[in-house]
Amino acid sequence: MKRTKVIDILKSTEFGKDVCVKGWVRTHRSSKAVDFIALNDGSTINNVQLVCDADKFDAELLKQITTGACLCATGKLVESQGKGQTSEIQCENIEIYGLCGADYPMQKKGQTFEYMRQYAHLRLRTNTFGAIMRIRHNMAMAIHTFFHNKGYFYFHTPLITASDCEGAGQMFQVTTKNLYNLKKDENGQIMYDDDFFGKQTSLTVSGQLEGELGATALGGIYTFGPTFRAENSNTPRHLAEFWMIEPEIAFMDLDELMDLEEEFIKYCVQWALDNCKDDLEFLNKMIDKGLLERLQGVVNTEFVRLPYTKGIEILQEAIKGGKKFDYPCNWGDDLASEHERYLVEEHFKKPVIMTNYPKEIKAFYMKIDAEKPVCMGKEMEETVQGTDVLFPQIGEIIGGSVREESYDKLMGEIERRNIPMKDMAWYLDTRKYGSCPHAGFGLGFERLILFVTGMQNIRDVIPFPRTPNNAEF
Amino acid sequence: MKRTKVIDILKSTEFGKDVCVKGWVRTHRSSKAVDFIALNDGSTINNVQLVCDADKFDAELLKQITTGACLCATGKLVESQGKGQTSEIQCENIEIYGLCGADYPMQKKGQTFEYMRQYAHLRLRTNTFGAIMRIRHNMAMAIHTFFHNKGYFYFHTPLITASDCEGAGQMFQVTTKNLYNLKKDENGQIMYDDDFFGKQTSLTVSGQLEGELGATALGGIYTFGPTFRAENSNTPRHLAEFWMIEPEIAFMDLDELMDLEEEFIKYCVQWALDNCKDDLEFLNKMIDKGLLERLQGVVNTEFVRLPYTKGIEILQEAIKGGKKFDYPCNWGDDLASEHERYLVEEHFKKPVIMTNYPKEIKAFYMKIDAEKPVCMGKEMEETVQGTDVLFPQIGEIIGGSVREESYDKLMGEIERRNIPMKDMAWYLDTRKYGSCPHAGFGLGFERLILFVTGMQNIRDVIPFPRTPNNAEF
Repeated sequence: MKRTKVIDILKSTEFGKDVCVKGWVRTHRSSKAVDFIALNDGSTINNVQLVCDADKFDAELLKQITTGACLCATGKLVESQGKGQTSEIQCENIEIYGLCGADYPMQKKGQTFEYMRQYAHLRLRTNTFGAIMRIRHNMAMAIHTFFHNKGYFYFHTPLITASDCEGAGQMFQVTTKNLYNLKKDENGQIMYDDDFFGKQTSLTVSGQLEGELGATALGGIYTFGPTFRAENSNTPRHLAEFWMIEPEIAFMDLDELMDLEEEFIKYCVQWALDNCKDDLEFLNKMIDKGLLERLQGVVNTEFVRLPYTKGIEILQEAIKGGKKFDYPCNWGDDLASEHERYLVEEHFKKPVIMTNYPKEIKAFYMKIDAEKPVCMGKEMEETVQGTDVLFPQIGEIIGGSVREESYDKLMGEIERRNIPMKDMAWYLDTRKYGSCPHAGFGLGFERLILFVTGMQNIRDVIPFPRTPNNAEF
Repeated sequence: MKRTKVIDILKSTEFGKDVCVKGWVRTHRSSKAVDFIALNDGSTINNVQLVCDADKFDAELLKQITTGACLCATGKLVESQGKGQTSEIQCENIEIYGLCGADYPMQKKGQTFEYMRQYAHLRLRTNTFGAIMRIRHNMAMAIHTFFHNKGYFYFHTPLITASDCEGAGQMFQVTTKNLYNLKKDENGQIMYDDDFFGKQTSLTVSGQLEGELGATALGGIYTFGPTFRAENSNTPRHLAEFWMIEPEIAFMDLDELMDLEEEFIKYCVQWALDNCKDDLEFLNKMIDKGLLERLQGVVNTEFVRLPYTKGIEILQEAIKGGKKFDYPCNWGDDLASEHERYLVEEHFKKPVIMTNYPKEIKAFYMKIDAEKPVCMGKEMEETVQGTDVLFPQIGEIIGGSVREESYDKLMGEIERRNIPMKDMAWYLDTRKYGSCPHAGFGLGFERLILFVTGMQNIRDVIPFPRTPNNAEF
């Protein structure tokens, strides 16, 4: 008989129909006359209940059906007597596919996330991680659908790169060299002409620069791929390998960029609310009681658009009014998390897109504003068209900017900052041949999943996290 | 005025309306009274024609508008007088965003693909590469949509891996070690306790094993991510970094796997026919005159399902009938390309899914068939439930199998083959705790793009190819 997924069984009201389900045992309760087996197949967070009359089944067989075992069960779909479910299966036959011993590490309920991280391959079978992974899939689907509907093309930028302009110190080296016999020149410098790519290579930290090549040809593109940081950061917010989304769009100005950022996040959150209801309700109940309200809040709120200079003025007002911060926040300072939180959580009480940052605290490729800002009556230094989307609780979720399209201005910044642009002529070519105004942003996928699931540790929203001293599975 | 994309301009029949387009100049023809500028913005392979009355424009401005320059043009949408297009723009104003000098490398038409590979960042602006990249995007969208509709979840398997069971010799090493001062033990062995992950790590060659962890928890998953091979293969079919799709589905048997493979490819090809018509017609005209017919053929044909043993019998028959092959094809041999081509292109003249291969020529994790096959009257050795989908011209496009779900049989193969399974206990756990029948396949994304575009060299269907001695851009 053809298998029906649990998600479809639970929606069905064809009572009396013969059905076949396959899945893993979550719980097995025995009473004198009847056994109740809760079966899950990963298609939904909800289990289907198998009702087994003890006199119809071999007692030895039923004894083998423990938590974690894999079964194929056939029987009649019947209306459920219990609360909280509409249908269950009056079981007629059970075939055991795989037994599961008492040493099964996901046996008990209520284990800590830390414990479960050791069993990242088996935690996927729990309610919480099933929910997270289904939401993760849905967020990826939302992202592709959003950009596809806008006519932006998914663009694969390379992972192995020979460019080091974003700081080689934090990059992983990629090599096929024999480390026992390293070829060196007369000065003792390691030579890379015999390495696979004929030069030193690393894993990329961003696809943005290559993304700009796509945007200035195809009009609008987005990347969605793995990105790497060799930072020795053992925090709940950092991974050495994570997924990033980086749209880049020709002919987009600052206002349109902020529109896109806001529309994009709202679209993803709305998708989760529309398509992941059961999983979100579970997480809202078990992990974070404010989750659903926070998600609803984001889709129903207009984000604040706040120039950095105006933000500084608000913070300085607050200090005058008695507010204490640990770090200074004078014009030109990179804002600390406490400042961002004050603006987002206390002052505006909604997401904030901060813009027009001082040039010195932002990247070389950001477009320089035409006019210098005035802060508390005084003219300040140059600003750039960068945008950070700041969220309650989570902080920066998106960083973007309009890109400097002027070859001369861009070269000026590159030279002033001594950025190594060796082998980067291809990037400058976009400004040399038919340069165009363009803009883009970057979103750390796992940061989005943290926000949408209410989870606290980034290691719990990716199947197999890579962190310092950890590359298991 | 709000910009309209060229793809939308060309569909519009609102003649007389004021419009604004932005894009790059493909050609610029001047006559005495009128200039014709073909503008493309990447949204479609087609250009919109700007008609500029010479007396309305500064001659100096018009002179600056060369191939590759970037413009913003406004004017009235009018019905086209020319052939092959319905609308054009009677131009009223032009702003030049970016000039383009005569040294622009994509200036001339008819340059070789080899030449263009040197300018992979600029070739994206040509008709051919624009078409390929739009099709590439559409194939990714088709893949996500196909699996999403089936209820399979996009599952991110790790790229950096510490497992070496697929053969470390062809893998790229990933390290943050200081190569000038390598820590070694008393035997001179390099120690990795001070490397980023505390052990030796490489870039993955496949996400399948981790994918099985996902499938045996979530029911059905698919991966779609970069994969790496450090093979020194300088061929038109190999990349060091390529994208792979690997679905893995619990409770799937051999027939269902073949159904899925066939349905999947047909869905992708049909998507291309439905959504990439202009680009395919261009490629059919310029690159491969048989392309559209071949694509239509695939969606309209039922694939042949051919046990390996039956294939050997057909090949042996052919040899008896006088057919000559360079390599032998006795039962137990791995078939050469010439044998596969004979079966696909000459004997059946349609795609073939070959199954039930001799155990010795396939991977350790494939499910062993219950019965030994009989070939030309004699019983042969054990076979496994592997499937290769063989296509005309392109050869193997998909490789898949039912996975061995028996812990004992799987361990037997691992031991017999001396496969290093150190640190791989997590994989065996899927067979230890609630093991289930499951199956999956792998598809090289660029192979699919080669087939759908009719291109011949895999370096031309990915934006920035990585091959031996080449990691540019």
